[in-house]
Amino acid sequence: MSEDNSPKTSLSELGEFGLIDHLTRFVELYQPSTLKGIGDDAAIIDHENFATVVTTDMLVEGVHFDLAYMPLKHLGYKAVMVNLSDIYAMNAEATQLTVSIAASNRFPVEALEELYAGITLAAKTYNVDVIGGDTTSSTSGLVISITALGKAEAEKITKRDGAQPNDLLVVTGDIGAAYMGLQVLEREKQVFKVNPNAQPDLEPYSYLVERQLKPEARKDISSLLAALEVQPTSMIDISDGLSSEIIHLCKNSKVGANLFEEKIPLDPAVISVCEEFNIDSTTIALNGGEDYELLFTVDQKDFDKIKGNPNFTIIGHMTEEREGMHLVTRGNQKIPMKAQGWNTFGDTNDE
Amino acid sequence: MSEDNSPKTSLSELGEFGLIDHLTRFVELYQPSTLKGIGDDAAIIDHENFATVVTTDMLVEGVHFDLAYMPLKHLGYKAVMVNLSDIYAMNAEATQLTVSIAASNRFPVEALEELYAGITLAAKTYNVDVIGGDTTSSTSGLVISITALGKAEAEKITKRDGAQPNDLLVVTGDIGAAYMGLQVLEREKQVFKVNPNAQPDLEPYSYLVERQLKPEARKDISSLLAALEVQPTSMIDISDGLSSEIIHLCKNSKVGANLFEEKIPLDPAVISVCEEFNIDSTTIALNGGEDYELLFTVDQKDFDKIKGNPNFTIIGHMTEEREGMHLVTRGNQKIPMKAQGWNTFGDTNDE
Repeated sequence: MSEDNSPKTSLSELGEFGLIDHLTRFVELYQPSTLKGIGDDAAIIDHENFATVVTTDMLVEGVHFDLAYMPLKHLGYKAVMVNLSDIYAMNAEATQLTVSIAASNRFPVEALEELYAGITLAAKTYNVDVIGGDTTSSTSGLVISITALGKAEAEKITKRDGAQPNDLLVVTGDIGAAYMGLQVLEREKQVFKVNPNAQPDLEPYSYLVERQLKPEARKDISSLLAALEVQPTSMIDISDGLSSEIIHLCKNSKVGANLFEEKIPLDPAVISVCEEFNIDSTTIALNGGEDYELLFTVDQKDFDKIKGNPNFTIIGHMTEEREGMHLVTRGNQKIPMKAQGWNTFGDTNDE
Repeated sequence: MSEDNSPKTSLSELGEFGLIDHLTRFVELYQPSTLKGIGDDAAIIDHENFATVVTTDMLVEGVHFDLAYMPLKHLGYKAVMVNLSDIYAMNAEATQLTVSIAASNRFPVEALEELYAGITLAAKTYNVDVIGGDTTSSTSGLVISITALGKAEAEKITKRDGAQPNDLLVVTGDIGAAYMGLQVLEREKQVFKVNPNAQPDLEPYSYLVERQLKPEARKDISSLLAALEVQPTSMIDISDGLSSEIIHLCKNSKVGANLFEEKIPLDPAVISVCEEFNIDSTTIALNGGEDYELLFTVDQKDFDKIKGNPNFTIIGHMTEEREGMHLVTRGNQKIPMKAQGWNTFGDTNDE
């Protein structure tokens, strides 16, 4: 939202090959399994005795991000996190990335450098190699498509379909902050539209805004669970809201679930901003999305290993499929759970 | 270009999850190495003792394709070919794909079904599994991002950097037809704009148009070379024009090259349409692009295995790096080679 006097180099000055070379010139490799990174028809990796996990996500300007408040470096970082989160949700180690970017000529080279700086910072921080990609022009807007690869022993990989009745339902970290960060940023954008000289005071909302603009994927959970000798029975990452993800686990595992409202971990900043916005914090936790925490189930025998660990909150338990999926409110009412996760095509659905 | 009375279902009727389920409902798996395909946070593959090769390409409406003459099913098929071609250029077997699509609401569900029908036809024909992807809305236009994976014994993988002076330079199939197909289609589009009732007669150009609209990647070459007991020293696929690809091999291998104009394999249809358009056919072969043939180098000792094989044409040989890269014309002139491959940012470059 500030004036920008930095140099502007048009994309056509570098051309497509020149741009790829330019953007990837600082790419380093950290993984021994990367035999060949950028610079050939394909990259070469060798995970030897490990299985490989593969995920992909596409972020579209005006749909998944708004450059009015999302700095490009943060966007690059977040685009990587969105993908790594899916790898960690398999109980796997993230190892490689490919990055494809379509950008219109309104983006100078320096803007794409910022985007790439965020991508390479994320790669370095998470010990992941950028091994390929594509950079092309678009007729409008910015599209980022990332594919992430990871590795794990095949028997350690945790899918969505292994939850059993009576398993404990566990979530990492806290929920709802990223969504409320977005609400705060949207409000400031409206203020800025009316008065472009207004300086937003985001200090009271710093945790929320950071969760929205610079989320961190839970790289630590897989090794933490291994150290505790806990093998989750199912796992998923929380990208679309707690409710939607619980429903995914239940449908894939053919079980039901009881989620206890009073157990849902909320940061105090979420509770206070929900009061300020006059929104119910449970609704935000259930439907907000973009938390990039992990949701998993464990056998009851693992209760002692999980309880009291500050990284984990037991928020409910799985039931027989016929019992359905319910939120148990603070008032002890059982309310059927519905997914109202984010739908980029503009309406909600019950999937 | 014809009137379309087929049913139209808006994307928002299905929603994002519904759309992914809908589009992928006919996806089948063919590869034993695919342990888990679509339906979890990530797919799981296991190439066991083989190395994995990974490539990605993004196609953008208005930049890489024009829906005025590119049927969506063909587009889906071609988007897969573009990626498989890179896998085959590593002398590897293609095994898996992820497919991400951003589409605006102007595309009905039926349009994306067509696109996906082309993708799944390509996957079935080439024995490759669609193991994941993302489907999202865009503010305008259609963007397709595909990542392809393949496998090969590590020592069999052929990169761009192994060519030696005196190696033979070999190309598969023939060159330039896809580009001339595009010229024919562009001309018909202009005719159609002036007279929408004109029925184009594309019959004389059927080979050219098919090479543009429905290219086939050279899946056969890797096993053919293995059967001939030929291990190429370097290999690349021809996506940006012969000249650009020779330069890539030379720069990566630190060698020079002599390309003999009279040896460049051209289909008779290319020669005749070049006369019709009054373009030099060698220029088209050098700079056209989108042929998806393979270009490789072999040791001179393999000459007898390559010569006379209808799949291969020896078009030149590699030299010492200091000798440079040259086209040797029919008149025996040596002209320095320049890349003028396709640049989506709008100008040419010398890379």
